[in-house]
Amino acid sequence: MSDECWLTVPDGAEFGTDTLPYGVFSQPKRGEAGARRIGVAVADRVLDLAGAAGRLGEEFAAVVDAPVLDPLLAAGPRMWRSVRRRVIEWLHDPGYRPVVLANLISRADVELHRPFTVADFVDFYSSEHHARNVGRMFRPGVESLPPNWRHVPLAYHGRAGTIVPSGTPIERPRGQRGQGEGGSPSFGATRKMDFEAEVGFVVGVGSQRERPVPVADFAEHVFGLCLVNDWSARDIQAWEYRPLGPFLGKSFATSISPWVVPLDALDHAWLPAPGSDVEPLPYLRSAPRWGLDLELTVRLNGYPISQPAYSTMYWTPAQQLAHLTINGAALRRGDLIASGTVSGAEPNQRGCMLELSWDGSDLVLLGDGSQRGYLNDGDEVSISATAPGPAGRRIGLGAVTGRVLPARG
Amino acid sequence: MSDECWLTVPDGAEFGTDTLPYGVFSQPKRGEAGARRIGVAVADRVLDLAGAAGRLGEEFAAVVDAPVLDPLLAAGPRMWRSVRRRVIEWLHDPGYRPVVLANLISRADVELHRPFTVADFVDFYSSEHHARNVGRMFRPGVESLPPNWRHVPLAYHGRAGTIVPSGTPIERPRGQRGQGEGGSPSFGATRKMDFEAEVGFVVGVGSQRERPVPVADFAEHVFGLCLVNDWSARDIQAWEYRPLGPFLGKSFATSISPWVVPLDALDHAWLPAPGSDVEPLPYLRSAPRWGLDLELTVRLNGYPISQPAYSTMYWTPAQQLAHLTINGAALRRGDLIASGTVSGAEPNQRGCMLELSWDGSDLVLLGDGSQRGYLNDGDEVSISATAPGPAGRRIGLGAVTGRVLPARG
Repeated sequence: MSDECWLTVPDGAEFGTDTLPYGVFSQPKRGEAGARRIGVAVADRVLDLAGAAGRLGEEFAAVVDAPVLDPLLAAGPRMWRSVRRRVIEWLHDPGYRPVVLANLISRADVELHRPFTVADFVDFYSSEHHARNVGRMFRPGVESLPPNWRHVPLAYHGRAGTIVPSGTPIERPRGQRGQGEGGSPSFGATRKMDFEAEVGFVVGVGSQRERPVPVADFAEHVFGLCLVNDWSARDIQAWEYRPLGPFLGKSFATSISPWVVPLDALDHAWLPAPGSDVEPLPYLRSAPRWGLDLELTVRLNGYPISQPAYSTMYWTPAQQLAHLTINGAALRRGDLIASGTVSGAEPNQRGCMLELSWDGSDLVLLGDGSQRGYLNDGDEVSISATAPGPAGRRIGLGAVTGRVLPARG
Repeated sequence: MSDECWLTVPDGAEFGTDTLPYGVFSQPKRGEAGARRIGVAVADRVLDLAGAAGRLGEEFAAVVDAPVLDPLLAAGPRMWRSVRRRVIEWLHDPGYRPVVLANLISRADVELHRPFTVADFVDFYSSEHHARNVGRMFRPGVESLPPNWRHVPLAYHGRAGTIVPSGTPIERPRGQRGQGEGGSPSFGATRKMDFEAEVGFVVGVGSQRERPVPVADFAEHVFGLCLVNDWSARDIQAWEYRPLGPFLGKSFATSISPWVVPLDALDHAWLPAPGSDVEPLPYLRSAPRWGLDLELTVRLNGYPISQPAYSTMYWTPAQQLAHLTINGAALRRGDLIASGTVSGAEPNQRGCMLELSWDGSDLVLLGDGSQRGYLNDGDEVSISATAPGPAGRRIGLGAVTGRVLPARG
C-alpha cells in the first residue's frame, strides 16, 4: 500500500482524503435507482460505500448497505475502525482504483439527507464565555455565571423531531414575544432570529438503563461528530424560559451537517480542556480532561463573522456523556449530544448573534457593507470547522448551512 | 346487534366493556409463538385484535397485525373510529361470540409492553395549583405563579428514551444534590424521590413542519391518552434547573400505563376548563376551552393518598397541542404530550409528594400507620383514573405502577 492517496483533491474541495466522513446521499437524476445510500465524502466526490464494499467482498458490506447510518452506528467501535481502515486502504492502494472509481460519484450529482435517525437530542451549555455573556444580557445585575455552572454540565432536551439536514430552509418562527419586565406578550414573527454554532456528538452504541457511562468510556459509545446550528428566537426564548428552560424559542428547527466525522479522524485533535479552580465531582474527573482543537467559522451570506474556538469549551464531550447518564438514563443509538453555543474569549469568537451584536445593540458589519443585529429574512448562515489532522495538515469537518425564509402569513 | 355486551365483567376488573383501550401484549408461556401483538383490554381479558380481525376478514386486519401500536396510530381518525366500532359490534352481537372467545386471553397469562414507539416527549406544567405550590417552595418570597404562566402553556422536552412501561422497577437515581443557597453540591442517591401524577396524550397523525395545528384540530392528530408517572428527584432538580429547566432530576425514568385509551372512549368526559381573567392569545382560543373530567387516584403501597382532579387543569390538551406547534415545530406519530402534575385545589388533590408533604415538612400518613415525606426504597406508586362514560357509568382508564428500588452501589 502506498503512503499517497491516488485520488487528487481539487482546490476548494470541502474534504480532503483524511476526514472520510459518512453521510447519506441519493442521486435524484437516477429515479428509483437513486434511492438513499451510505456515502463517504472524499475530495469532490462521494463514494458509494455499499457499492464498493459489495464489489470487493468486504465482510462489512451488509452493515453499510442501508438508507441511513443507523446499522453502522450500532455496529460499534471495532466495526467503525475496520470500515475506516479499509476505505483508507482502497484510496491508497492503486489496485483498488478501478472498483473505487466505478463507485465515486460527483458531489454535484447527489442530494444529501439527514444521515441518521435522531433518538434524543440533548443540548449542553458548556462554553463559559457564552454562559457569561448570556447571563449578562438575560439576567443583568446578578453574577453572570449561574451558581451551579462550574459544578453541573448544564443541559436540556431539545426536540429531536425538528432536526433537519443542512440546506433545509428555515421559516422565521412565530410565537409569544416578551415585552420586557411585566406586561402581556405580543404575538408574531420573532424579531430576534438567531443561530447558534455548535458541535454535536452522535451516539452509536447505546447504554443500559441504570448503568452510568464513565468518562473513560466515551469512545465506546460515540461514533463521531457533526456541526449543529441550533436556530433560536431570542424574544420567544426570553419570555418562555423561566422556569422550565428553552422550548419554542428553539424547537422550530435545528440543522445538522450532512457528513458525520468519525472520532477516528480526530486522533490529532485532542488537547487538554481549559483548567479550572473548581474540582469537579469524581464522576466528572479525568486527567487530563480531553477537549478538542476544533476551529469553527461562521459565515453570514458568505462573509465570515466569527471564528469560535471549540478548544475553549469548559466541559468536555466525555464529561457531558458521563453527566447525562449518571442518574441512570440510558443512551440510544442516534442520540445527538450538542455542545451548546461555542464562544471563545474574544468578541470575534462568539457563536451567535445575541453575543456578536450584544442583543442588537452593537451591529455586526458584513463584507458587503450591510449591518445586522439579528438575522434578516433571506440571510444564509453557514457554520464550518477544521481540526488538526495527520502530518501537520488540517482536516475539514464539513459545514451546516441554512437560509432564513420570511414568516408565513 | 344487542345493546348488551355478551361478555360478563367480574368485580374488580380494571376495565369494563366501554373503555376498550389498546396495548401490546405477549404470552411468555407460548415461547416464540407468544410474540408481541396488539390487544384490546376488556373485562379481565385481552382480545388478540389481529387474531380476531383476521378470522373475521376485517379490512383493517393488516393495520393491527403489528408488535406495536405505531401503524394503527398512523392510520388516522377514520380508521381509529372504524376499528373501535367493529370491536364494539363483536362484543354486542352474539354471532361474533365464538370467534371473539377464541381470541380472548386471560390477563393473568399476558405480559404488557410499552405500547408505541415514543417520538418526542413534551411535559407541560398546566395545573395552576401545582405551579403555585411549586413556586411557593422553590421560589419563596416572590409571586408564586411565574409572570408568563397565564399567557404561555409552559413546557419542556423530556427524555423519550427513558419512557418505560408500567411495572418497570425504578432505581433511586444518583446525582448532584444542591445544598441550599450557595455552596458546593453533594453527590449521592436522591433524598427526595418523588412521583408526578400526569395524563399523557399520544399523537397518532403527525403534522408538517411550519404548519401549526389549530386548537380545533386536536382530534385529527391525537389518538388517545395514557397515564404518566414522571418520576422526579427534587434535590437534583432544584440544583440543576436554573436556567435551562429540569434535566437529570427527571430524565432517569418516566412510566406510562400499558393501555392507551382512545379519545373516542371519552365522548362523555369533556367539560369546560376553568375560567380565567386573562384572555389567551388568538391561537390558544376556543369556546369553550374543552377540558376533561378525569379523576385520578394515587396509591402508595396500596393506600390512597391523593385524588387529583384533571378537570381543574388551566391549559387544555388542545391548547397544549396548538402551542407546541405555533412556532412551526412538526408533530410525529408517537409524540407523547404530558399534562404536567395534576393537582387540584385541595390538599388531598395534590399530584406529587413535593406538594403532599410540602417538601417533607408535613408528613403523609399511610393506611398502615407509616409516614412519608418523600418515597422510600420499596415503595410502590400506582396512579389510576376514571372518567364519565355512557349511561351515567364511569369508565376505567387503567393505571401506571412502579416500585422504587434502592440506589446501586
